[in-house]
Amino acid sequence: MPYPFATRLDHVETSAIRELFKVLGRPGIISFAGGFPDSALFDVEGVARAAAAALEHEPAAALQYCASEGYAPLREELARLMRAAPGAPEVQPPQLMVTTGSQQAIDLLAKILLEPGSTAFVEAPTFLSAIQCFRLYGARVIGVPIDADGVQPDALEALIAQHQPRLVYLIPSFSNPSGATLTLERRLRVLEIAARTRTLIVEDDPYGAVYFDAPPPPSLLALSAQVPGSRDYIVYCGSLSKTLSPGLRLGWMVAPAEVLARANMCKQFADANTSAFAQATAAHYLASGALPAHLEKIRPAYAARAAAMADALRQHCGDAARFTAPQGGLFTWVRFARDGAPVDAGALSKRAIEHGVAFVPGAPFYCDNPDTATARLSYATASPDTIREGMARIAKALAES
Amino acid sequence: MPYPFATRLDHVETSAIRELFKVLGRPGIISFAGGFPDSALFDVEGVARAAAAALEHEPAAALQYCASEGYAPLREELARLMRAAPGAPEVQPPQLMVTTGSQQAIDLLAKILLEPGSTAFVEAPTFLSAIQCFRLYGARVIGVPIDADGVQPDALEALIAQHQPRLVYLIPSFSNPSGATLTLERRLRVLEIAARTRTLIVEDDPYGAVYFDAPPPPSLLALSAQVPGSRDYIVYCGSLSKTLSPGLRLGWMVAPAEVLARANMCKQFADANTSAFAQATAAHYLASGALPAHLEKIRPAYAARAAAMADALRQHCGDAARFTAPQGGLFTWVRFARDGAPVDAGALSKRAIEHGVAFVPGAPFYCDNPDTATARLSYATASPDTIREGMARIAKALAES
Repeated sequence: MPYPFATRLDHVETSAIRELFKVLGRPGIISFAGGFPDSALFDVEGVARAAAAALEHEPAAALQYCASEGYAPLREELARLMRAAPGAPEVQPPQLMVTTGSQQAIDLLAKILLEPGSTAFVEAPTFLSAIQCFRLYGARVIGVPIDADGVQPDALEALIAQHQPRLVYLIPSFSNPSGATLTLERRLRVLEIAARTRTLIVEDDPYGAVYFDAPPPPSLLALSAQVPGSRDYIVYCGSLSKTLSPGLRLGWMVAPAEVLARANMCKQFADANTSAFAQATAAHYLASGALPAHLEKIRPAYAARAAAMADALRQHCGDAARFTAPQGGLFTWVRFARDGAPVDAGALSKRAIEHGVAFVPGAPFYCDNPDTATARLSYATASPDTIREGMARIAKALAES
Repeated sequence: MPYPFATRLDHVETSAIRELFKVLGRPGIISFAGGFPDSALFDVEGVARAAAAALEHEPAAALQYCASEGYAPLREELARLMRAAPGAPEVQPPQLMVTTGSQQAIDLLAKILLEPGSTAFVEAPTFLSAIQCFRLYGARVIGVPIDADGVQPDALEALIAQHQPRLVYLIPSFSNPSGATLTLERRLRVLEIAARTRTLIVEDDPYGAVYFDAPPPPSLLALSAQVPGSRDYIVYCGSLSKTLSPGLRLGWMVAPAEVLARANMCKQFADANTSAFAQATAAHYLASGALPAHLEKIRPAYAARAAAMADALRQHCGDAARFTAPQGGLFTWVRFARDGAPVDAGALSKRAIEHGVAFVPGAPFYCDNPDTATARLSYATASPDTIREGMARIAKALAES
């Protein structure tokens, strides 16, 4: 190879999931593999009205460069949105910057905090792109064990003492891929550990507003008001991708001033600013007050699909599939077994494709020591009937294990 | 400071220019400091029609995630746009990826190529954010001398032999900040040097389409067809920011397959993909065929302002301001002197603000050994009358030197 590529590329690879996506276009394939919201649920008319209003009322701002920290009216709307969330965290616009999706918030945090020789913690399992992002900056990535109640505080505390991570990346509500939600009690313990050990916690919260019956506990950011000294160690990453639209590519970060200033400096040299057109459109959408009604529409739709998947898993797989029914988000995390023995979900995934159904094996979501019997199944884009048919196909593939 | 920031932040700082921008809001200040196109020239109606069409015809795609390499219809339009450029470079969609402004292209190239111990070349002077971006990845940045005809090939060749840079970053047409355009003869020599020394050239071309009387010479990418082996060493970065709108935040990169694949992998973990909404909007705009007419409108507007600035510089400053009249782009690069002695443009800039006019001193645009008598003056957003008044004010500040 003639090009002098940087050694940081040695640590990462194009996602294993990405290869899987190539088969999804085949006719008749039922896919539980995606991590996308359902495009049929988008509020297209609301976004169209907002975009037209942005270009009518602030054409110069919407089509121009804007401050790297974000378009001021959107920062105000996002701060307002946060203050209306469970636990009503105190957030003002200067504490918040807009990012090009919350993926960019993760990348900017990695850029300012991680380097060769440093360590980042993630949940085991966690969002695949966070692992890869951290590795691209040369960090060692260590997984902290989770269960159905989220990250285990005792294990977290012991690992912090051992490794002094530069950051701990958590998805406390309806995690990707596990679907797990950190309990209120554990959230308070995590905050206490963060404050005492002076460890930065990155709280990624793309799914918190996509709950089914009841909201998740307040965010770590909101709860930090109850744990002295902890707010200085919480960075909150939000996203409009699962609530409004991934296509606007809008996320945001609430962080201590010193962290925010450095992330914002790096953003200048990463993409200068996030699309002002997308930001002005989102600002008008949020100001219109349409988001709460839209969320009331999508929550029961996802809840019905999650319930259909849980029912179908029980019906078709029985004891061969262990899972905790999610209370929000887009994913069911399953552990497959046959006659009590773990099933290799990677092999199962390949057989499932032959039966016309796709899902993502769980192993790539672990930074190390994967549980190879796990799998992530998204119910987000399939109807309950399709979900039932898909689960029947998985059961057939499982019977061949 | 309680946070464990990465050492890469030691090498950079928030831009000196940024501080200057804080005074621009003062009433009565005439600004030549910006690097922005004129928002009064935006084709607001055309963009509004394109956005509405995107949401009417492809709402699901426009509001959803998309492939990290870009929205397919936009990649097709951009490849077509490139093939219509001077020299008609052969570009097909698979050779091109969409980026979040061309700033992201620069960042992705730095990420895949640069690391501590490696070297990047830039023009002296060059685009400030490129220098900072390269330093954030730990690279040593070395400036290659330029003159009114762009980078000097002999110096480039000697420095390549001495330092073996991982990349050479050039803005061949109407450079920022120098306004210089690389001649056809020098372009061919640069290509020959690139092929012979196997050195990657990054051709950043945001201004090439914003010419006044005549197009610049064909891009290095286009000319690479004439220099055997050189195409493998050219990465072309394009942008819609100066032609259509910075607010869409759309750029693109044409690169050899191995470079493109790695940049695309890094993009997955940087921002996943560029706003599909902005991409679909731009795809509709380009497909409508409106861009050529829009360019015909903005070219004479910028040409008139550039001419007004050149005339006013001659009239008000005479021998005290040396410059080459730009043939395109947004900037006039000036070297100030008084009685034959160089004037400190940083001090002049401060005095100029007291006289009610702002411009950017040239020193920050050099990675080292700055020529402190230089300054960048943008004529892009001021009327000819305002330009004349602003130059009269600069002349007053200069008289106090």
